[in-house]
Amino acid sequence: MANFVGHLLPGLIFFCFGLYYAVLASLALLRGQRLLIPPLPPRDKRPQGWLRQLPIEGLVKVVVCIPGFLGAFFYPLGSNRLVLIDWEDPERQFLYHNSWQHMTMYGFFIISGLVDIVSRGWLPRQQMKLEQAALALAFQGTALLLISHTQGKDVLEVRSHLLLVLPNMLIVLVLMTELWFPDQPVLWVFKVWMLLLFGSWFAHLGSFLYYPITGRPWRADKPGDVMFLTTFFCWHLTLTALLIAGVYGLCSLWHHRCPLQQEPETAGYQLCPTDPTTAELKQLMVEMNQEDGKI
Amino acid sequence: MANFVGHLLPGLIFFCFGLYYAVLASLALLRGQRLLIPPLPPRDKRPQGWLRQLPIEGLVKVVVCIPGFLGAFFYPLGSNRLVLIDWEDPERQFLYHNSWQHMTMYGFFIISGLVDIVSRGWLPRQQMKLEQAALALAFQGTALLLISHTQGKDVLEVRSHLLLVLPNMLIVLVLMTELWFPDQPVLWVFKVWMLLLFGSWFAHLGSFLYYPITGRPWRADKPGDVMFLTTFFCWHLTLTALLIAGVYGLCSLWHHRCPLQQEPETAGYQLCPTDPTTAELKQLMVEMNQEDGKI
Amino acid sequence: MANFVGHLLPGLIFFCFGLYYAVLASLALLRGQRLLIPPLPPRDKRPQGWLRQLPIEGLVKVVVCIPGFLGAFFYPLGSNRLVLIDWEDPERQFLYHNSWQHMTMYGFFIISGLVDIVSRGWLPRQQMKLEQAALALAFQGTALLLISHTQGKDVLEVRSHLLLVLPNMLIVLVLMTELWFPDQPVLWVFKVWMLLLFGSWFAHLGSFLYYPITGRPWRADKPGDVMFLTTFFCWHLTLTALLIAGVYGLCSLWHHRCPLQQEPETAGYQLCPTDPTTAELKQLMVEMNQEDGKI
Amino acid sequence: MANFVGHLLPGLIFFCFGLYYAVLASLALLRGQRLLIPPLPPRDKRPQGWLRQLPIEGLVKVVVCIPGFLGAFFYPLGSNRLVLIDWEDPERQFLYHNSWQHMTMYGFFIISGLVDIVSRGWLPRQQMKLEQAALALAFQGTALLLISHTQGKDVLEVRSHLLLVLPNMLIVLVLMTELWFPDQPVLWVFKVWMLLLFGSWFAHLGSFLYYPITGRPWRADKPGDVMFLTTFFCWHLTLTALLIAGVYGLCSLWHHRCPLQQEPETAGYQLCPTDPTTAELKQLMVEMNQEDGKI
Repeated sequence: MANFVGHLLPGLIFFCFGLYYAVLASLALLRGQRLLIPPLPPRDKRPQGWLRQLPIEGLVKVVVCIPGFLGAFFYPLGSNRLVLIDWEDPERQFLYHNSWQHMTMYGFFIISGLVDIVSRGWLPRQQMKLEQAALALAFQGTALLLISHTQGKDVLEVRSHLLLVLPNMLIVLVLMTELWFPDQPVLWVFKVWMLLLFGSWFAHLGSFLYYPITGRPWRADKPGDVMFLTTFFCWHLTLTALLIAGVYGLCSLWHHRCPLQQEPETAGYQLCPTDPTTAELKQLMVEMNQEDGKI
Repeated sequence: MANFVGHLLPGLIFFCFGLYYAVLASLALLRGQRLLIPPLPPRDKRPQGWLRQLPIEGLVKVVVCIPGFLGAFFYPLGSNRLVLIDWEDPERQFLYHNSWQHMTMYGFFIISGLVDIVSRGWLPRQQMKLEQAALALAFQGTALLLISHTQGKDVLEVRSHLLLVLPNMLIVLVLMTELWFPDQPVLWVFKVWMLLLFGSWFAHLGSFLYYPITGRPWRADKPGDVMFLTTFFCWHLTLTALLIAGVYGLCSLWHHRCPLQQEPETAGYQLCPTDPTTAELKQLMVEMNQEDGKI
Repeated sequence: MANFVGHLLPGLIFFCFGLYYAVLASLALLRGQRLLIPPLPPRDKRPQGWLRQLPIEGLVKVVVCIPGFLGAFFYPLGSNRLVLIDWEDPERQFLYHNSWQHMTMYGFFIISGLVDIVSRGWLPRQQMKLEQAALALAFQGTALLLISHTQGKDVLEVRSHLLLVLPNMLIVLVLMTELWFPDQPVLWVFKVWMLLLFGSWFAHLGSFLYYPITGRPWRADKPGDVMFLTTFFCWHLTLTALLIAGVYGLCSLWHHRCPLQQEPETAGYQLCPTDPTTAELKQLMVEMNQEDGKI
Repeated sequence: MANFVGHLLPGLIFFCFGLYYAVLASLALLRGQRLLIPPLPPRDKRPQGWLRQLPIEGLVKVVVCIPGFLGAFFYPLGSNRLVLIDWEDPERQFLYHNSWQHMTMYGFFIISGLVDIVSRGWLPRQQMKLEQAALALAFQGTALLLISHTQGKDVLEVRSHLLLVLPNMLIVLVLMTELWFPDQPVLWVFKVWMLLLFGSWFAHLGSFLYYPITGRPWRADKPGDVMFLTTFFCWHLTLTALLIAGVYGLCSLWHHRCPLQQEPETAGYQLCPTDPTTAELKQLMVEMNQEDGKI
């Protein structure tokens, strides 16, 4: 969906996910948690009630991505781009290469959502590393497709997409690092920051490529337009950092003013101890590794 | 062998190796092994019988690569490309540069196989780091030659080969990392995944460059063809990941249903303990390091 | 400010900061400190007197950058470039892209200075990781903008700016590494070296691009000029290394001759113990991590 | 010295250094040493006699590089290229840019040699990290200059120089890694391998660019010539690996047959213990770190 809405919507979705994780990371920091998202207890020890057992995050991912997935083929309504090759054409050309790329991107995130659902809802023990790896795959695939998107485009599209690939690749890098070191608050915050940046730049990119505020499309042959790309990107960098600081401040206020309200929310979780001895963390890591082989 | 079969066969060989390692990695995970392939005991403590002492993996590598090695020069039968320079030509040109490159690639893997044979069959103690390094060298050499292959080709060949170099380089990276950290299940699975991807993409690359299903060759001047390269690569990424999940599922079934059948198979190996204390692993690592200097 | 002074001044400022840190690092080495800059004690235990509590380093950063920030828009006096878009032009072009980029660079360092002031002057506990991250962001943003600066320039400007980006990126890398490993003297010295190199090359770059000593501008079509870029850069590498050796020598002399003079200066700091056991350092690190979540 | 001898000689020198280190590394492995080159004892505990205290390695570096350094300006005899700018020319051009680059490369290695001499002969304690860093700087500078050398050259020169930069950069990477982890035998062997490869490829590069065996210069417009570059590089990779294996084999023979002859040679060194407990190594590392600050 090479138009304004096709960039605005996914951008906003990533941005909202980023905001959600910013809140999670702030609370995790304030509570001194060991892990950003504490692992679920083994399945037989979880609280009863199907609502409590619902793997909400995975469901949201799937529900949010399916319109994009279908829209790549059937939007606007009545159209049908679900054809790979035009067999009647003697050239047998590939059709709708953009739609298939967008479908692939959405597909990666749907797979990540399905892995979350299976891991949290079906398996006897949650497989955090598997979820993490599926998410890293989704972002890595997106990066590959974004790089391929720039094929044969002008310098404005190439550079704006490369600036989008930068936070994307950094997210992949952090997700892969967290497979081994999930207990680093600096990495949590960095991941959230890059996610917010990815979302806000995605939406902005759609704006200046297809629907500029000035009413005049940006042009690759104007050096000013190309240089302002990086300038605006730097402002996004700064503003998203300030946004995280703001979210942390609000969470800090809430945490210190309403210390009681938070208890019920975390009741269902096995809260990690805040004691600074690392022995327990190692034990936790060993257990997580053990689980890999004993589903 | 710049034709369909010359890409299909090596691709299938890598894919089969990938499948074999997928089974090994799944079983290693299910059994909670410390190392993907447990080291052989010192030579004087190994089981008797020449068949049991045969370094099968190394032999398979050598046997499989020799036809490719010879085929680079003598296939189709009757031809002979084993000439480096045409001394009769006053220009003294290099001849058959493609054949010599293919020969070099096969040569690297033959060397890796020979190192395996020597390490497992001749030396008093198996040199796992040496085997690993020889395999990394083979993949690294392949990556260098694949990059050189793209010299002066069109964007379709360049990009498809670069996408082949990507898993190739990641395999090298993992193999080198495993020299220091051989006990990381995440790395085992990642290596297997990249190996399957390398093999399947290698075979697919031969298909669309020389023998496309549609009957029409892909062309670099059609942007759709170039963009579908990355799309298909992403599908390979996903499908090989699903394949590993499937192999793991089958191995898991077999492991839980037939717990007795596996004993005889591992009888010849010194199974690593599954106890989570890391002291034993450190001892193992120290011993492996010690061995380096005391052949 | 694409002129000689606009490159000389920031270059000199970075160079002076480098010299200051060279002295700090030398003294830290000579005193066997654990951290380059020991953390301030919690706020309620700091010495009384507003002068002693002044976050001098942050103030200097802000004060030094504000003229650059304002100068990007209002220098020479009377001009006003604080306009983003020319709304009266039917093309609605972006205006003064260079000024906005320079403003953004100065803005990053002003933010870093403000973070220092807030962290050292307002927060109950100093947030060293936050200060480090803000500084890394400032250098990273500068690198992005320097790369963008080379858009559409000739090979001389491109190469000289890329050689400027090299120490810049290495500074970012070291700053990010120090988030996890702040106790590595090798990293302190390397950071100082790259800072001096960045400053001296920045000033030199302004010289040969706008105000060459020979009176003749360097030209991109003369291969000698382009090759001498790298030669001079290598000499800067060597000379800044010798400069650090010299600073270390002077500090060493001062440290050994006047052992008493140094005491008063460090009285306000909680000097880290020089005992080589690592337990205390770990405790320190754990405390620093704890602080993140308990502002 | 852009001719055959100007590439052959430095190549051979690097190759000989590589061979020397191959012997050192083999013996270190066979003796189970902790460090490739054991640190000298503090100055007052060293054996008496000026010959024994001579910092031979540093002297060899300096002596070997001075002819290259001077030759860059005064070879062939009678010429004088020690002029930076032609002040009489109204263009004030830079002169002899190649000579100044070669001089800079040799200068880096002379500095590294001088640092060795000072560290081993003058300072009260040997500064191993400083020596290592000076050597890394020398190789890093060489890499920068080699990359700059390719400016405006044809694809044959560019690619052959990039293949030379590859082992060069890997040497820098290993040297920098060894600043923190000097006790990794894998790194010793890898460094030796890359050094041999760098030397042999350097000499070979001179051969096919200026003095090809076939009597016909290689040409960039013949794809065969360009592709054979990588093929030959892969053969160098393999042959240097085999050479190391051979050196190790010879050293192993010598070590097992003549266990007594080696004692006197190492008498002057403080041999590291071969016991696998890591406590002593840590102590050693701590001491090395301590030394940094207490010259």
